Amino acid sequence: MKRIAVFTSGGDAPGMNAAVRAVVRNASFHDMHVYGIRRGYEGMIDGDLERLERRDVGNILHRGGTVLKTARSQRFMTPEGRRSAYETLLAHDIEACIAIGGNGTFTGASVFTEEYDIPFIGVPGTIDNDLYGTDLTIGFDTAVNTAIEAVDKIRDTADSHNRLFFVEVMGRHAGFIALNTAIGSGAASALIPETDTTIEDLVEFLKMGARRKKLFSVVIVAEGNKNGNASEIAAQVKEKFDFYDTKVTIIGHLQRGGSPTALDRVLSSRLGFHAVEGLVKGHKNVMTGLVNGKIKYTPFAEAITKSKSLDNDLVRMAEILAL
Amino acid sequence: MKRIAVFTSGGDAPGMNAAVRAVVRNASFHDMHVYGIRRGYEGMIDGDLERLERRDVGNILHRGGTVLKTARSQRFMTPEGRRSAYETLLAHDIEACIAIGGNGTFTGASVFTEEYDIPFIGVPGTIDNDLYGTDLTIGFDTAVNTAIEAVDKIRDTADSHNRLFFVEVMGRHAGFIALNTAIGSGAASALIPETDTTIEDLVEFLKMGARRKKLFSVVIVAEGNKNGNASEIAAQVKEKFDFYDTKVTIIGHLQRGGSPTALDRVLSSRLGFHAVEGLVKGHKNVMTGLVNGKIKYTPFAEAITKSKSLDNDLVRMAEILAL
Amino acid sequence: MKRIAVFTSGGDAPGMNAAVRAVVRNASFHDMHVYGIRRGYEGMIDGDLERLERRDVGNILHRGGTVLKTARSQRFMTPEGRRSAYETLLAHDIEACIAIGGNGTFTGASVFTEEYDIPFIGVPGTIDNDLYGTDLTIGFDTAVNTAIEAVDKIRDTADSHNRLFFVEVMGRHAGFIALNTAIGSGAASALIPETDTTIEDLVEFLKMGARRKKLFSVVIVAEGNKNGNASEIAAQVKEKFDFYDTKVTIIGHLQRGGSPTALDRVLSSRLGFHAVEGLVKGHKNVMTGLVNGKIKYTPFAEAITKSKSLDNDLVRMAEILAL
Amino acid sequence: MKRIAVFTSGGDAPGMNAAVRAVVRNASFHDMHVYGIRRGYEGMIDGDLERLERRDVGNILHRGGTVLKTARSQRFMTPEGRRSAYETLLAHDIEACIAIGGNGTFTGASVFTEEYDIPFIGVPGTIDNDLYGTDLTIGFDTAVNTAIEAVDKIRDTADSHNRLFFVEVMGRHAGFIALNTAIGSGAASALIPETDTTIEDLVEFLKMGARRKKLFSVVIVAEGNKNGNASEIAAQVKEKFDFYDTKVTIIGHLQRGGSPTALDRVLSSRLGFHAVEGLVKGHKNVMTGLVNGKIKYTPFAEAITKSKSLDNDLVRMAEILAL
Repeated sequence: MKRIAVFTSGGDAPGMNAAVRAVVRNASFHDMHVYGIRRGYEGMIDGDLERLERRDVGNILHRGGTVLKTARSQRFMTPEGRRSAYETLLAHDIEACIAIGGNGTFTGASVFTEEYDIPFIGVPGTIDNDLYGTDLTIGFDTAVNTAIEAVDKIRDTADSHNRLFFVEVMGRHAGFIALNTAIGSGAASALIPETDTTIEDLVEFLKMGARRKKLFSVVIVAEGNKNGNASEIAAQVKEKFDFYDTKVTIIGHLQRGGSPTALDRVLSSRLGFHAVEGLVKGHKNVMTGLVNGKIKYTPFAEAITKSKSLDNDLVRMAEILAL
Repeated sequence: MKRIAVFTSGGDAPGMNAAVRAVVRNASFHDMHVYGIRRGYEGMIDGDLERLERRDVGNILHRGGTVLKTARSQRFMTPEGRRSAYETLLAHDIEACIAIGGNGTFTGASVFTEEYDIPFIGVPGTIDNDLYGTDLTIGFDTAVNTAIEAVDKIRDTADSHNRLFFVEVMGRHAGFIALNTAIGSGAASALIPETDTTIEDLVEFLKMGARRKKLFSVVIVAEGNKNGNASEIAAQVKEKFDFYDTKVTIIGHLQRGGSPTALDRVLSSRLGFHAVEGLVKGHKNVMTGLVNGKIKYTPFAEAITKSKSLDNDLVRMAEILAL
Repeated sequence: MKRIAVFTSGGDAPGMNAAVRAVVRNASFHDMHVYGIRRGYEGMIDGDLERLERRDVGNILHRGGTVLKTARSQRFMTPEGRRSAYETLLAHDIEACIAIGGNGTFTGASVFTEEYDIPFIGVPGTIDNDLYGTDLTIGFDTAVNTAIEAVDKIRDTADSHNRLFFVEVMGRHAGFIALNTAIGSGAASALIPETDTTIEDLVEFLKMGARRKKLFSVVIVAEGNKNGNASEIAAQVKEKFDFYDTKVTIIGHLQRGGSPTALDRVLSSRLGFHAVEGLVKGHKNVMTGLVNGKIKYTPFAEAITKSKSLDNDLVRMAEILAL
Repeated sequence: MKRIAVFTSGGDAPGMNAAVRAVVRNASFHDMHVYGIRRGYEGMIDGDLERLERRDVGNILHRGGTVLKTARSQRFMTPEGRRSAYETLLAHDIEACIAIGGNGTFTGASVFTEEYDIPFIGVPGTIDNDLYGTDLTIGFDTAVNTAIEAVDKIRDTADSHNRLFFVEVMGRHAGFIALNTAIGSGAASALIPETDTTIEDLVEFLKMGARRKKLFSVVIVAEGNKNGNASEIAAQVKEKFDFYDTKVTIIGHLQRGGSPTALDRVLSSRLGFHAVEGLVKGHKNVMTGLVNGKIKYTPFAEAITKSKSLDNDLVRMAEILAL
């Protein structure tokens, strides 16, 4: 194999640059030429790519975002779009692709590789950590640290005023960020998609704290929880228990940015590095993951359909530690 | 003077603890006893206070929020409330008060000191920096740094997607935070209460950038600007110029928290220290400020009525640097 | 079991407070009384301990260091010292101890529990990560992040001057911190106890980079590597290859401090929580660890004698990515 | 004036990039062409320069170090070197230079402008803050924040062990960094070039604290103090007062790196911006400074010979607050 391409796609995640660097450096070690495609599948369709050499990725390891830019592509969902993308790869003699992204990215890769015979290897890059086939995804650790730092600051002002903040963090389908943020920040509770905590449960818990003179300051709300967004939840709680001056903070896109943490830098490097190793060893149409500390390749078909479940032990612990 | 009290009031600001520490330490140096009143005027009314000695403030310099807690007090706006507050001071033989807070705090102090003969010295603690009589207020530098760090992270993700973010920062009456955040983060523009930039102006500026292939990523919006909140502005811009994928982030209460910066720690220490020096020298009913690097005492009457204006040189520079 | 004690011992590590909190909270959940012993075995000998209730650990989760203080104890190495320690436990009806620390701490616990019938559970707290029986130790992730942040700053100035810095990080017996710091900061090389890289190898590598116009800026040196300390290595390199202006930085005790990272907060909470679960389930004289994402209890005898080895895959990857 | 050059020289300081950006942007606004000279006077001698346009400085505001690289130049101290430098400027029709650096940089500029008729404007960039003609220099605020963050971490571990750390910060000729670090971190004392504190004084102070059960944890040592380096001072203190387990940390080059603070970004932007304004207004051979919040131009001759003194009020306050 002499020529491969690498791209980032979907939502950006801190560590994607470290993964791109590892791909380029390890491919160069194996005497391959690497092309960087800009804006994911959009750039593949438009022929927006360029050669990346070792030195081109020399100062990007620590930078947030993705130097290759990223996008979501409607056109790649059409046969015409994928045909154009294929022609781009053909025109540059590209023999394999390394796709850094999440579920949507690998779904696209899965469809494409059924139509065209170009091997793809996926690298799991999404802050949500909701991908089967890897214990951790690129950007998750940074996102949780960003959320916890934000809650640390909010707690300063919450404690000064005896206020209760509802802090909304990312996670439409999974509570990994919310649960870890709650444990790491000592929050009263985490409302997450995976559990059935109701507003009544939450109010009961807050009342119990108040009776014991425990002043809670923060409740973490995952986007995809079942009770509404943070503002709606705050209003519902206020209606049932008017003890606190309640406030709402939505951390939002801050969670996507920032220099990656140590763990994300090392993880991204490993996953990018082993995406190339996978190609060399003949793997194709699989996602590179880290499972129990070891590299594992999971077929796209599994990675995009199976779901990763939250550790119930952590959920139970979060409740007991908040008492 | 043998017994004084110190309290924090109004919105909390990072550095208030450093000011409390400096008050206690310098008062102890002058052989005064210091009482810490909790929750501002509320605690003064309720008699919620306790003796603070040197060692009690030994590990608070670097902590955000205020260990004395803070509150806004409706009761202190009534003659009965102030009478109760006076009785608390009388009961503890307190001869003077040091009030750390903002405009509302000093307005309260001003009314109180006209009714009762207990000298007050103010220390300007508000992240908004909108107090006459001091170049800098406690918490402003930390708030701007927090806002800029947030914008740095947002820019990572904005650049990766070619998005335009409208980032709302605090500042109902003044654009100090917004203007400094815009300059410090290289934002396209700052919409602030002091200027008359319209949506049309902003759109024109963004279009000019687009024509020159300059992709802007961030516009800073002060709460008190004339065009609405960040979401409203984003919608109006989108209507007139649909070039960008626009997003909104509201930094909110994060700006109030966090460990104070170096500048805020030193500034807070100086202002707290010189509040006590002021008392020793016989000042009363004045706010301690730092003007051109020197300590200056400004009567409450002036501090709460005069307004501090933004440096027009900075406004002009911000525009030119964003081109 | 009704009364237990918890203490921290040996070198402090960020996250120890989160572990103490989890011990106290979970023990309270199981209706146990918890005593916090100050200064490790020293306080156990001196009877320096006090009751800790849920609320006493309410605001310590995010703080570096250890609120229980820590120490190394010569006296506990003597039979008399251990006898005094036992008497303290007896006097307070303490039925079990939870010891947060490293190899020395568990060695002490191992000797003590052979002499006296009081069950001990260990919690691995050491930034070096060199404990068998757990994939991660408390404080390691924070220490690596601190080291990488320092290297990020050093690289700014190194790149501005075309300098080569030798940065010494902790790790007398193990290269975990150094290797992860090197990968995470894109360093040229990591000199660690586990490998046999010589000064000649290093110089050869630097020369190869220079020939290819690659300007290296940082070499990471673990304390326990085989070529001497960072200053000695810098001098030896300079003698053989006078291409760079070389500088030395020793990160030192900074690595022990700081607010724990998200990972360390969650890890510490889990390990502390499950130390109590272990007691409830009848475990004794074991260390609580996290292995492949699951809690595992390892007998002290194993934990203190077996050694944890570095992942060779990481060593190889570090070399290839630095090319 | 149509063509100017900008360069950074001497030790690098965080904020230099923001100053370069402001120079390029404002010069472009005035329809000038700007050339960026690499490695300071070295690059001027070697003809190492290139055109910088608005967009070339588009993403450097927040980055530490200097994208133009910096160096100290022996050759520029010779008439031959300066002649070569002049020829470079002549060859590119450069009509004026903006020099970002410290005392050495302006001394060079001063000699050069006496020999050749090319106007220079200086921008004060040095973390030490020891330049006459400006209240603040570029990089000082960032350096103090870096030092204080380091001390905050060291204090975590110092408090856990009851240790006394001697922390050495930069400042060969001035105590600005050390004094502000000491105040901002609540250190016991700052040993600085400007005062005559002896080891005996320090020991007396530490003993007084010990008698009052105050456990100090940190003493700040400026490089240029009169009692030796931090290690020597620690040894001398240990000899006279063996109460503490003493440790030494040298923060070193970390202080030069890192993303500039809000204040440094705004300050650097202003100074760079007004260097161009100065040229436009016909100033020459002056340093741009900020004095009492206003821009002021000081002749090189004054800037390099007069000295800026420490505020004695701060020295006195530091002592009282540490009691």
